[in-house]
Amino acid sequence: MAKKNGAEQRFVGIDIGGTKLHAVVSDGSGRVLGMARKKTRPERGFEGVMARAAAVGQLACVKAHVRPCDISAIGVGAPSPILADGTAVNAPNLGWQNEPLVTTLAEHFRQPIFAANDCDAGTFGEFTFGAARGARTAVGLFMGTGLGGGMVIDGALVRGQNQMAAEIGHMKVVVDGRRCGCGQLGCLEAYASKTGMLKRIACAVHCEGRETLLHELCEGDFSSIRSSVLAKAYGQGDAVAVESLEEAARYLGVGVANMITLLGPDVVVLGGGVFEALGAELIGLVRDTAAAQSFPPGSAKDTRIELAALGDDAVAVGAVALALREVEGA
Amino acid sequence: MAKKNGAEQRFVGIDIGGTKLHAVVSDGSGRVLGMARKKTRPERGFEGVMARAAAVGQLACVKAHVRPCDISAIGVGAPSPILADGTAVNAPNLGWQNEPLVTTLAEHFRQPIFAANDCDAGTFGEFTFGAARGARTAVGLFMGTGLGGGMVIDGALVRGQNQMAAEIGHMKVVVDGRRCGCGQLGCLEAYASKTGMLKRIACAVHCEGRETLLHELCEGDFSSIRSSVLAKAYGQGDAVAVESLEEAARYLGVGVANMITLLGPDVVVLGGGVFEALGAELIGLVRDTAAAQSFPPGSAKDTRIELAALGDDAVAVGAVALALREVEGA
Repeated sequence: MAKKNGAEQRFVGIDIGGTKLHAVVSDGSGRVLGMARKKTRPERGFEGVMARAAAVGQLACVKAHVRPCDISAIGVGAPSPILADGTAVNAPNLGWQNEPLVTTLAEHFRQPIFAANDCDAGTFGEFTFGAARGARTAVGLFMGTGLGGGMVIDGALVRGQNQMAAEIGHMKVVVDGRRCGCGQLGCLEAYASKTGMLKRIACAVHCEGRETLLHELCEGDFSSIRSSVLAKAYGQGDAVAVESLEEAARYLGVGVANMITLLGPDVVVLGGGVFEALGAELIGLVRDTAAAQSFPPGSAKDTRIELAALGDDAVAVGAVALALREVEGA
Repeated sequence: MAKKNGAEQRFVGIDIGGTKLHAVVSDGSGRVLGMARKKTRPERGFEGVMARAAAVGQLACVKAHVRPCDISAIGVGAPSPILADGTAVNAPNLGWQNEPLVTTLAEHFRQPIFAANDCDAGTFGEFTFGAARGARTAVGLFMGTGLGGGMVIDGALVRGQNQMAAEIGHMKVVVDGRRCGCGQLGCLEAYASKTGMLKRIACAVHCEGRETLLHELCEGDFSSIRSSVLAKAYGQGDAVAVESLEEAARYLGVGVANMITLLGPDVVVLGGGVFEALGAELIGLVRDTAAAQSFPPGSAKDTRIELAALGDDAVAVGAVALALREVEGA
C-alpha cells in the first residue's frame, strides 16, 4: 500500500475530560470531518472510561463516514501527566493513579495510539493548526476551573525529564500568597482561574456584604458558577463580577509577562472556558499587563497575544497533531 | 590543512564584565591552558573596551604559549542581550547602546567570533563542561549584584525570538512587590540578589535600629558590601546577615521551584559571587524551598540542584563552548 500524505490520512483525536469525552476525526491539516461526544462517567472506573473513550472515537468515525480501517493513528489528551510509556500518572478529576492509558486503549484499536496531557495537546493543536500556526515558540494558557498551560519551543513540546513540566498555573507569582487548590501557596492558578475568582466573589458577598447579580444567577451556590454566567453579570456591569474577572485577567497578564521574560515566544494563546466566554472583553487587560511587566521593557511587543482559535476541539485536534507528527517521524 | 578535532583545537574565550575583562585559552574539552585579566575601563568608550578585550585575549594566548594563528575561533560573553548579528543591545554597566560587538572585535582578530549574553554563556559553560555536564535540559542562576540566568533545553540555549529571553531574575514572584533595580515590581532579583539583600540590611540598621557586624565591616556603606564580607558576618552568626542571606536563598528557592514546575530540567546550577562565597551554607535552604514549592509535589526530586563548577571561568569557558559548537556546525 502506498503511503498516504498528511492531507489524505485520517486520524482520531479523543479529549478525555472530567465530565465529557469529545472525539474528532480529522485529516492531516486539522480539518474536522466528524465529531462525537459522550459523558465521561468516571464513576465507572478507569476501564469503563477507556471503553467509553473508544466508543466515542468509533462514533466520530461513523459521523465522518470514515471506516476504522482507514484511520492512521489515534491521539488522546487526558487531564494527567502522561509518561513516555503512555501511563496516566495522576488525574484527580477522574480518580486515576498510574493507569496504563495507551495499552488499555490499544485493546480497542488496531492503530498506534499517542497520548499527552490535555493542556499540552491543546497548546500543540493551537501551535499546529490554530492561533499560533507558523510560530516556532508558543505558550498556551487555558483558563477554566483551573489554569492549564503548555509550551512549544522550537517546534517541540516542553515536557521536562519527568514528563510533568509546563505546569504554568502552578508557577508561584505571590510568595506565601493565596492558597491554591493544589495545597501550595501563591500559584498563578489561585488568582487566575474560575476557582480563584469564585473564592473572591464568595468573600465579597459573605465577608464584605456586597451585592451582586451573581447571587441570584447562581442561586446562592458560588462554587459552581459557569463562565457564561460570569459573562452575563460582566456584561451587565456587575461590580463584583467585573472586579473579580479583571483581577484574574491582570494576574494572567503577569503570568504571560513571566513567560515572555523567560522564553520570548512568538505567540501566547489564551483559551479555556473563561476566554471562550469573555475573551474579547479581557484580552486587552492581559496584553496591557504583560506589556508593563515583561522584561526587558518593550519585549512584549515581539510576542503576539491571541485568543485560541480551535475552541472545544483544541485538545482533540491537538492530539491528532501529535499523532500526525509521530507517524511521520518528525 | 586537515581539520583538527575538538581536543586539538584552541579557542579564546573573553568575559567582558562591568569592572574586569577575563580571557582564557582553552581546548575543545574546556581545559584552560592560559588566562589573563585586565580592568574593563568602560569610561574609555565602546571602541576602547573592544581594544582592551582584544589585548586581553592576545595576552591569554601568550600565557598559554599558543600562537594567534593556531586559534580556531573566539567566543565572547558580555552583560547585554546580543542579537544574531552580534550587536550588543544594551549594557547599562558599560554605557553601551546597540554597539556592533562582533564586527568591531573582528578588526582585531582573523578568526570567526561568536558572542552571547554573559549569563547565557555561563549557563552553557556549566552545561557543556561544568556542573550540568551530561544534562539535556539545564537552568543556570548566578547570584551576585543582580541575579542572572540562562536556560538550555534539549541542548540549545533559549534566547527567544528577540534574543533577550531567559531573564529569570526578572520573573515576577511577588505581584506588586518590592521595587527592583530595573524599575519594575516584584522581580525575583529584588529579593534574591546582593542588591536586594543590601536594601534589607540597610533597612534593618536605619529603620529598625538593629546592630550588625556588617556596619563595621563595610565602614557604614551598605551599598557596596562584597560577598566575602557577607560570608564573614554570616560565619560569625550575625543575625542581620543570616536573616538577609537566608531570605535571599529562600526566594531563590522559589525561583528554582518555578523553573522546575515550568521546565522539569535535569540540573539547576547555582553560581555567582554570593554562591561562590556561601554556596555550601545556602544550598540546603534553596533545595528545601524548591522541593516544597515545585509542582507536581515531589517533582524536585528529579532535578539535581548543584553549585557551579567553573567559578570565575564560567563565562569565558562557556563562550568557548558556544564558539566550538558554531565551528563544528552542531
